[in-house]
Amino acid sequence: MSVSKMEYRFLGRTGLKVSAISLGGWITHGGHVTDDDAFASIKAAHDAGVNFFDTAENYNAGKAEIVLGSAIKKFGWKQNDLVVSTKIYFGLNNSADPSNPINNVGLSRKHIIEGLNLSLERLGLPYVDIVYAHRPDRNTPIEEVVRAFNHLINTDKAFYWGTSEWSASEIADAWRAADRLNLIGPAVEQPQYNLLTRTKVEDDFRWLYGKFGTGLTVFSPLKQGILTGKYNGVETPPPGSRLAEATDKYTKSFAATFGNETWQRELKQVEALKPIAEEIGATLSQLALAWVLSNPNVSSLITGASRVEQVHQNIQALGFVEKLTAEVLEKIDKALGNKPVVPPLRF
Amino acid sequence: MSVSKMEYRFLGRTGLKVSAISLGGWITHGGHVTDDDAFASIKAAHDAGVNFFDTAENYNAGKAEIVLGSAIKKFGWKQNDLVVSTKIYFGLNNSADPSNPINNVGLSRKHIIEGLNLSLERLGLPYVDIVYAHRPDRNTPIEEVVRAFNHLINTDKAFYWGTSEWSASEIADAWRAADRLNLIGPAVEQPQYNLLTRTKVEDDFRWLYGKFGTGLTVFSPLKQGILTGKYNGVETPPPGSRLAEATDKYTKSFAATFGNETWQRELKQVEALKPIAEEIGATLSQLALAWVLSNPNVSSLITGASRVEQVHQNIQALGFVEKLTAEVLEKIDKALGNKPVVPPLRF
Amino acid sequence: MSVSKMEYRFLGRTGLKVSAISLGGWITHGGHVTDDDAFASIKAAHDAGVNFFDTAENYNAGKAEIVLGSAIKKFGWKQNDLVVSTKIYFGLNNSADPSNPINNVGLSRKHIIEGLNLSLERLGLPYVDIVYAHRPDRNTPIEEVVRAFNHLINTDKAFYWGTSEWSASEIADAWRAADRLNLIGPAVEQPQYNLLTRTKVEDDFRWLYGKFGTGLTVFSPLKQGILTGKYNGVETPPPGSRLAEATDKYTKSFAATFGNETWQRELKQVEALKPIAEEIGATLSQLALAWVLSNPNVSSLITGASRVEQVHQNIQALGFVEKLTAEVLEKIDKALGNKPVVPPLRF
Amino acid sequence: MSVSKMEYRFLGRTGLKVSAISLGGWITHGGHVTDDDAFASIKAAHDAGVNFFDTAENYNAGKAEIVLGSAIKKFGWKQNDLVVSTKIYFGLNNSADPSNPINNVGLSRKHIIEGLNLSLERLGLPYVDIVYAHRPDRNTPIEEVVRAFNHLINTDKAFYWGTSEWSASEIADAWRAADRLNLIGPAVEQPQYNLLTRTKVEDDFRWLYGKFGTGLTVFSPLKQGILTGKYNGVETPPPGSRLAEATDKYTKSFAATFGNETWQRELKQVEALKPIAEEIGATLSQLALAWVLSNPNVSSLITGASRVEQVHQNIQALGFVEKLTAEVLEKIDKALGNKPVVPPLRF
Repeated sequence: MSVSKMEYRFLGRTGLKVSAISLGGWITHGGHVTDDDAFASIKAAHDAGVNFFDTAENYNAGKAEIVLGSAIKKFGWKQNDLVVSTKIYFGLNNSADPSNPINNVGLSRKHIIEGLNLSLERLGLPYVDIVYAHRPDRNTPIEEVVRAFNHLINTDKAFYWGTSEWSASEIADAWRAADRLNLIGPAVEQPQYNLLTRTKVEDDFRWLYGKFGTGLTVFSPLKQGILTGKYNGVETPPPGSRLAEATDKYTKSFAATFGNETWQRELKQVEALKPIAEEIGATLSQLALAWVLSNPNVSSLITGASRVEQVHQNIQALGFVEKLTAEVLEKIDKALGNKPVVPPLRF
Repeated sequence: MSVSKMEYRFLGRTGLKVSAISLGGWITHGGHVTDDDAFASIKAAHDAGVNFFDTAENYNAGKAEIVLGSAIKKFGWKQNDLVVSTKIYFGLNNSADPSNPINNVGLSRKHIIEGLNLSLERLGLPYVDIVYAHRPDRNTPIEEVVRAFNHLINTDKAFYWGTSEWSASEIADAWRAADRLNLIGPAVEQPQYNLLTRTKVEDDFRWLYGKFGTGLTVFSPLKQGILTGKYNGVETPPPGSRLAEATDKYTKSFAATFGNETWQRELKQVEALKPIAEEIGATLSQLALAWVLSNPNVSSLITGASRVEQVHQNIQALGFVEKLTAEVLEKIDKALGNKPVVPPLRF
Repeated sequence: MSVSKMEYRFLGRTGLKVSAISLGGWITHGGHVTDDDAFASIKAAHDAGVNFFDTAENYNAGKAEIVLGSAIKKFGWKQNDLVVSTKIYFGLNNSADPSNPINNVGLSRKHIIEGLNLSLERLGLPYVDIVYAHRPDRNTPIEEVVRAFNHLINTDKAFYWGTSEWSASEIADAWRAADRLNLIGPAVEQPQYNLLTRTKVEDDFRWLYGKFGTGLTVFSPLKQGILTGKYNGVETPPPGSRLAEATDKYTKSFAATFGNETWQRELKQVEALKPIAEEIGATLSQLALAWVLSNPNVSSLITGASRVEQVHQNIQALGFVEKLTAEVLEKIDKALGNKPVVPPLRF
Repeated sequence: MSVSKMEYRFLGRTGLKVSAISLGGWITHGGHVTDDDAFASIKAAHDAGVNFFDTAENYNAGKAEIVLGSAIKKFGWKQNDLVVSTKIYFGLNNSADPSNPINNVGLSRKHIIEGLNLSLERLGLPYVDIVYAHRPDRNTPIEEVVRAFNHLINTDKAFYWGTSEWSASEIADAWRAADRLNLIGPAVEQPQYNLLTRTKVEDDFRWLYGKFGTGLTVFSPLKQGILTGKYNGVETPPPGSRLAEATDKYTKSFAATFGNETWQRELKQVEALKPIAEEIGATLSQLALAWVLSNPNVSSLITGASRVEQVHQNIQALGFVEKLTAEVLEKIDKALGNKPVVPPLRF
């Protein structure tokens, strides 16, 4: 199976180029995937042109960073050929490592700086390309947050900073503080974005793209597997599916929604997408990934992979983006019935 | 005797969380307490959830910092799990070490930077969380002071800076300079505060909390022991009391006030508190500590301890805070007759 | 043959003094010239008073920097006695080394910082005097570019930054961003400038000199050899000439213009210069170099040399500058017919 | 002979305290004085309370810095107990070492940073307290100069910066640039000042003291010996006097003025001071030094010394300052007839 040619996009308005498909390590690296399988997937992604690897301090309590750093060392890659990002907010505080969380969480200057220093130690790197604030922290003044991320940039520990799961107004507030203090604002936001979850990216954020040049690195393109169609027509999560084998608290809480009202509505939406996928010769998963990439505000789509095969499948979705013509996109909107209705922007 | 669950509060408007009870080292660490007893007290405090340890360059001529640093090393604690603060102003210049004080005192850029560098050497740490200006220095322009503390933050030697025993207008002047220069203002002030000493915290500073987010780390909750009630009804300082055994100049000068007019008035105030303490089932000391903590502008109450037992007693005061209802607080104010009368704030 | 006394000029409005004749390494260092010949030329230039040596990350895929750095080490020169410049934009990406160019090209913060770090490694130096943006990058916000070059200056990796082959409006935009952010603007531009290529330096840039103090370090004084007169009266590039032996893509593309309309016009212009060169007793090459140096906005003329003899010949051009009186310059303008007609500047 | 108690003064408006008498190394350290004598003088000064030692990169071509640094190491002094200053402008370029001066002179960013780095190497210190611009450099934009000195402060290589032999308007221009860029202005100027040379300090600079808090560290209190009275009534420079034995170009050029019109006028002024010196029981030299110190705008008087005895004699002048009452000062002004007549300041 040949792999599509990789495409590179600018990270929002910055000069940094990231592969349109990137590889993340959440729940996989240092988690339910063996290190050898993780190394193989990372290698396969790199071979296929993926230059952007995403992780976070809390992914598998720091182990995801250790795996990614070990891979970079093992394969002898140089940082100028890679884009590495990590995220600071949660510390190591998850079910696997209930360490003292008092100042090891949130966006105090202390945790932002100590957190990234510990991440860099785990990664075995002197710097990352992008450091994200993994969540907003309404208990810390935005000025303290903006100053601390700029401090990381000024001390050569990161080139850019971004946000993850922040609201449009929180991002705008960060830019307001940055502008007032002559500092650098957040270059990129990392939200969930997929065929079933569109409001934030297509409505809330719509004015950020032009005004602040906000880039998007988006995750969960298959919405935990619903958009593969594998839950359509089944009464219980099939054996081997992530929902059936959930061990971490995030997946467990998602598994608990199995079969509820929202679940039923979304299965119907997935059903309605099937003929469109067939029309362009794609699987539902390929359609779902290609659709995310068809949004020009998306800088990179973060994918996960347990096996090399999945890496290749994800990247192949790139080949279907050109088939998503205006006509096909309109059919999708009609089938889903969830396209945000937004007034035109005025500045 | 079980120890109350620790409470954590934000340091003023910052994102830093400090234990409501913290442990200081003035006169104890490196002073009249053996190192082994100091280590035991520090360990007991840590075990009880205290994450915040306070010291200063001049406490026992630098020895307090050496003791605290040694404890952190001995117990293998990591800085991300601690909040360590020190204070710069007096150098090592006290009765025990009359070294050349010329530029080893005050808030010149030279002493602020050299002073903290020497403190960090004694502590064996690369940085502290908070560095205080231990006193105002009216001979150094506030711009020089603000720039120097920001330099410490910019060079990764501290995360926050604060003041100790500054007046409200001096703090405001520092913020004015910081705002004009786009620099970071002082996050916290460290004043004396107890049932008998209320004006500064409750009157002078009242507009700072909302305007600058000034946090308070307060000391002397028992006013050198008067609020324990142990001096009520005695003609001379009892053997074993701090006043009877004063060796340092600070305590000696306080001992000299024994029995004077203020002393007599304060003993009467203490007497009037006894029925209230009984009513809530607390000792006078517990009432005094709990009352300080009942002020929401207090970020942390700095306590001293010669023995492990005192650490536990101090922390137990936390259990009485909830008993200080509006009704009880009003009784206290009437008993003391010293509540500042302040007009409402207008901005 | 004795060598003219070197002249030193300020680099634009800065306090840095550069030799009016400087030595560049494009296509020579690490390229078609052996290392021993390169070392000899560098030594000869230095002996003749040249203090300014120019290179770039992409010149012979990094090898030019290695040669220059080796020479400095070999001869034991100290950086305070030299002015070393390099340029960042193209990475190592040329025909000799088609390495992964994704983020190894352009003016992202990532490439500016990583690029210079790699250049300094190749040079074996802790810093350069001047770092240039080798081309404009219209895909990266000017604010990101200006901040990144200032970061290099703030972290002691360069003293000044400049541009190369930027337009007047791009330079002005960089100054506008620098002024708004209180940062340092580009001190110098490196354009092509010679008797046949005058518009940019004499027309486009004319208001930059007074307003921003823009200095010029210019290259290609002989326009790839045309101004030596060696192509006049020949039907094909003579054996041994650069055009006949072109191996790199730049020279090949230039060779392809041999004989076209522009080529014919320029040969006629060169012909018309011959009597003027004779009048002042110079060769055509000497006239061409001296004429460039007669422009007071030129801080330094970057020359190349394959052999020591060429170094001496280049420097001898300095001796003819004083012969270019107002009268002679006017004759040249008439002979060429290419002097830009520009209105007087108003501010 | 007992030595007067040292007095400490603030360096202009900064928080730095310098001894009113300081020791300089011009022509002595590394020059006509043996290292052992220099060490002895430095030690004697330190023992007498001198905490401020002044040098410059060019004093005896760098040797003065080596001697001062060696003394500090030899005696085991710590930087927090000292104030060390050096000056950057001339490089090593003097008669003893005519090294290549191209960029090793002046106030380019290159020379300011490289110059101090080389000075610190010679001194064997990580930083100085004060770095001076030894002369104004009208060829370098004031913005470049102010930024470069601030860079030294920001990179922990100096705490304060100052000027030497700048005009009032040049100092004001530096402050204007510093204020506009939110940077630190020059804290101190080092001019010549003595009974015969008053205009700059008492007239030109008079508005700088209040507006910018400019401190003064002054040199040449005896005007090369004239104020000792030793040249009164002699036809040729007496054997053993500095003028008779001049070897350096500065002293030689001064020696050349022996006997000219200015010389004659100044001898008369010295003559007129004799009865006043007698009246207060001082030698002429003591009167001259005490008079300089009686100006409250003088932060420190830089003295030179070839022998320990001179150190003690210089410091004894402090004892005569209190004898310079308003009445005595008026007598001096009348005797000299050179007091600048200045209008009152208006702001």
